[in-house]
Amino acid sequence: MPLSPDQLAEIEAARANPLPTLRATSPGMEAHLYRAHQVLDHGFIRVVDYMGDDAAIVQAARVSYGAGTKHVQNDEGLIRYLMRHWHSTPFEMCEIKLHVKLPVFVARQWIRHRTANVNEYSARYSILDREFYIPAPEHLAAQSVVNNQGRGEVLTGAESARVLEMLKSDANRAYDHYEAMLSQNGQLGLARELARMNLPANIYTQWYWKVDLHNLFHFLRLRADEHAQYEIRVYAQAIADCVRDWVPLAYAAFEDYRMGGVTLSGKAIAVLKRRLAGEVVGQVDSGMSKGEWREFLEVWG
Amino acid sequence: MPLSPDQLAEIEAARANPLPTLRATSPGMEAHLYRAHQVLDHGFIRVVDYMGDDAAIVQAARVSYGAGTKHVQNDEGLIRYLMRHWHSTPFEMCEIKLHVKLPVFVARQWIRHRTANVNEYSARYSILDREFYIPAPEHLAAQSVVNNQGRGEVLTGAESARVLEMLKSDANRAYDHYEAMLSQNGQLGLARELARMNLPANIYTQWYWKVDLHNLFHFLRLRADEHAQYEIRVYAQAIADCVRDWVPLAYAAFEDYRMGGVTLSGKAIAVLKRRLAGEVVGQVDSGMSKGEWREFLEVWG
Amino acid sequence: MPLSPDQLAEIEAARANPLPTLRATSPGMEAHLYRAHQVLDHGFIRVVDYMGDDAAIVQAARVSYGAGTKHVQNDEGLIRYLMRHWHSTPFEMCEIKLHVKLPVFVARQWIRHRTANVNEYSARYSILDREFYIPAPEHLAAQSVVNNQGRGEVLTGAESARVLEMLKSDANRAYDHYEAMLSQNGQLGLARELARMNLPANIYTQWYWKVDLHNLFHFLRLRADEHAQYEIRVYAQAIADCVRDWVPLAYAAFEDYRMGGVTLSGKAIAVLKRRLAGEVVGQVDSGMSKGEWREFLEVWG
Amino acid sequence: MPLSPDQLAEIEAARANPLPTLRATSPGMEAHLYRAHQVLDHGFIRVVDYMGDDAAIVQAARVSYGAGTKHVQNDEGLIRYLMRHWHSTPFEMCEIKLHVKLPVFVARQWIRHRTANVNEYSARYSILDREFYIPAPEHLAAQSVVNNQGRGEVLTGAESARVLEMLKSDANRAYDHYEAMLSQNGQLGLARELARMNLPANIYTQWYWKVDLHNLFHFLRLRADEHAQYEIRVYAQAIADCVRDWVPLAYAAFEDYRMGGVTLSGKAIAVLKRRLAGEVVGQVDSGMSKGEWREFLEVWG
Repeated sequence: MPLSPDQLAEIEAARANPLPTLRATSPGMEAHLYRAHQVLDHGFIRVVDYMGDDAAIVQAARVSYGAGTKHVQNDEGLIRYLMRHWHSTPFEMCEIKLHVKLPVFVARQWIRHRTANVNEYSARYSILDREFYIPAPEHLAAQSVVNNQGRGEVLTGAESARVLEMLKSDANRAYDHYEAMLSQNGQLGLARELARMNLPANIYTQWYWKVDLHNLFHFLRLRADEHAQYEIRVYAQAIADCVRDWVPLAYAAFEDYRMGGVTLSGKAIAVLKRRLAGEVVGQVDSGMSKGEWREFLEVWG
Repeated sequence: MPLSPDQLAEIEAARANPLPTLRATSPGMEAHLYRAHQVLDHGFIRVVDYMGDDAAIVQAARVSYGAGTKHVQNDEGLIRYLMRHWHSTPFEMCEIKLHVKLPVFVARQWIRHRTANVNEYSARYSILDREFYIPAPEHLAAQSVVNNQGRGEVLTGAESARVLEMLKSDANRAYDHYEAMLSQNGQLGLARELARMNLPANIYTQWYWKVDLHNLFHFLRLRADEHAQYEIRVYAQAIADCVRDWVPLAYAAFEDYRMGGVTLSGKAIAVLKRRLAGEVVGQVDSGMSKGEWREFLEVWG
Repeated sequence: MPLSPDQLAEIEAARANPLPTLRATSPGMEAHLYRAHQVLDHGFIRVVDYMGDDAAIVQAARVSYGAGTKHVQNDEGLIRYLMRHWHSTPFEMCEIKLHVKLPVFVARQWIRHRTANVNEYSARYSILDREFYIPAPEHLAAQSVVNNQGRGEVLTGAESARVLEMLKSDANRAYDHYEAMLSQNGQLGLARELARMNLPANIYTQWYWKVDLHNLFHFLRLRADEHAQYEIRVYAQAIADCVRDWVPLAYAAFEDYRMGGVTLSGKAIAVLKRRLAGEVVGQVDSGMSKGEWREFLEVWG
Repeated sequence: MPLSPDQLAEIEAARANPLPTLRATSPGMEAHLYRAHQVLDHGFIRVVDYMGDDAAIVQAARVSYGAGTKHVQNDEGLIRYLMRHWHSTPFEMCEIKLHVKLPVFVARQWIRHRTANVNEYSARYSILDREFYIPAPEHLAAQSVVNNQGRGEVLTGAESARVLEMLKSDANRAYDHYEAMLSQNGQLGLARELARMNLPANIYTQWYWKVDLHNLFHFLRLRADEHAQYEIRVYAQAIADCVRDWVPLAYAAFEDYRMGGVTLSGKAIAVLKRRLAGEVVGQVDSGMSKGEWREFLEVWG
């Protein structure tokens, strides 16, 4: 259970007193505010604040493109046009702030998205809780044999049990020793900034993360993708579900052009044109490497 | 008059219908929303949206520093601590979106602040209005003789009149020709992206500008400073007046530590310590250059 | 002629004394160093410094992907893989510094690429030269009738002559008055930071611009594209010619995947698959808007 | 010993063949290139590439400030002027690329500096080595009693021995199990991206890190400071030693104005002025909080 009764009471208190505002307001997002969406065994994401809505994107675009855009297109068409042509600045006019609880090894991938603002729980100042990510058995998989980084077959039986046992016992021993090192029971107690080094990468941390919608879409494209590691993908998907309710037109355009789209190289365009003209093209005469050709076939058969 | 009746009606309409929100709300900022604050002869700034308040800064800091911060300090003390120690990330948790109308030469300075989001009116798509910044006579000044970039004595009489006449007539002639080049009255009409090149740098443009509070403070420190060019300083001051109403605690800390503060070099510290010990120190034995020494005396006498 | 004899002598002096270095060195780029490539009537780009080469991209990628990448792929294949999968960080390991002379209206577009370092000539400190961009007659075109921002038919005869006359005479008058306002001949002389506001957007400025290869590719994709304004496109193309000599493998991948590639939406993929299966698909049953369909046909016929 | 014989041989090979270049070259930095400077027990930093030197900073500044700067100041004076007035863009014209091997908990602090380029060793693709940071006994300290985050008294005797024993045995057990989970000896073997979660934060990782000089100075100011955690401070100091040899004038200005300087608030200025006028001022009539006053006394006595 990711939230304590105190935290739940705090959430309900925060939701109890709506105030009047003149700002752009998204009813779909108001319903999410402060509420925790559980992710993995002890994690969550929750929306803490947001700025803007679909109309704010349109408004910023109309400032840029002036009177010319006023009558020709409805909001949906304009948003699709912006997405199609990589006009990213109007999407930057929306902003979201999330509170996220996540394992450290997920946080390490996440933080590589640099264009965002972060306040993370500091283990120099404070003591971390005894909470570790232990994968569900169906997510314990072997190294992929076709992909240098992904997962393949799911582990079963004795191997699965043995892995879970190691993860659990090592996490607990590491935490026991963390506590023992910090302990001032007749001792000085090791500084927090040092004791934390004993903790494994599946311990949970938390942070506030604030990002604009353009950069969030970039994050979602990479991290909600099926090639992303499962443990970050579920966070991306939980966020995506909130974004859909926040800016439905922008999210629909994102789904069509980014999540559901592909990028073709000049070589791939040439092959498709030859195929459309009835020609049968193989890897050797495609000009592509074997790897490129395999990826091409995954989409086009 | 910077706003047309249509624009004023639009502002009043936008202000007419408050909606309930669960987000952090700043009463001081709600009073500013959408209202234009006039700057220079035809410019303005107005707040279009905001995210967060003083409490949001504190909340983010408490996530970082954990339970340790809960009881020791009130909000004001914590905000001052963050500002004093350059802990900038909690201030990044607040965001503001402004609509600004400003001369192009001011926009060119402003845009150098890169960590912000911008949607500017596009003169490729749309036609610019006939609005130019013409300085008030008391702002027509000579090049400073002590400062490589600033202004010195105010121009008077015939010189002032002659300068104003040149600025006005050149602006109008440039705009007449801009219109004539665009004209399709029996002609093709020059493309907007080309015709705009005839317009001088005092023509007004406008944009939406979105920035987090930390980067906004950095902007204000540089641009509300007395060494900044007058024409950008008045924009910075108008924004500062809104920020004071938005996040009064953060703004007070900013005023004390940044606007009212100074940075001392190791050499300057050494001189002050010698002075405190009763010694009389001159430039030659200060280790400073003449320029540094002059700047030192400006603060310390 | 963009360069004075003094400047040319300076360039030859800078090229006269090669020094030994242990850094990664690109022979193709050494040949460009300091040499000005003319752009437009008075502009230029020249490479002032660079960091890295194709091998540096590969080296950074191999740090990330470890021993697994050592034997399976040659450098070209690895670079193409990185480009295809949007693995942008290895390209960020190369850096280029350019000296550019360009009209102000081009600079205003250019500066919107925020992830770069810039030092621009300051008209607050120094006096601008009397150099203006005057388009060649074949580049004086009308507003496009199919595109909200582009150019259409070329102007001819009297209209063209009249436009050129306006551009030239307004530029010269504006500069005459700029000089007159600055003049201290029996006067105070207006401050430079004010006098500059009289100058039109086709006056030349210059700057040092430093950017990493990933962000440079992004710039080139948008600005060397046929939809970019001609006056910035020629700068992008001149830079592209240097990049090709600097990092030939990376540039070839960029050309295939970015400049020569397209992005397809989910809807467009579905239409192409139906076509490949022999179906005839029209706009109405494509699910696309008329605008999207027109753009789709431009690529696929 | 952080480097294997293979790695040392690679370094010597890389240093064996200087090539001629026309670029700005820093003899002090050439001597460092590729050579590893040991940090902590298994870590290092080494310079892999650099761009620019002191003269490049001056050159960029002179582009900005034009002819006005040509005769009045020597290079050292100009660089000090830029540093004193926070004119940061000329320092951005220099760039450095480092190869760093560091414990994960140090990497997690380091990565918070967002304006940099990073390629980190990926534990999704590759297997980490059995190398852990184990503090030397003299660096095992208790939590500070005056500072919420720092270290206080050094641990001794049994407590120290017990802590070291825990750190060593937990690290080795975690790594044993990491290997066991990966093992395909009659098993599928757990995917690398999952197995890594068992490893503690004192395991070593490595990355290429590229940053401009302005942002590097910001990093050094925060991380070479005595309040920074010891384990990141030693990295910052090793880098600082290279920077001193690379851009001696810029580094000297940085030392005087940043490392050796202080920032005074408006309140602190007022107190110092009263003291200079002979007044005795205490905390109560200083307007400062107790915390501010304590920090003030640390500098001024």
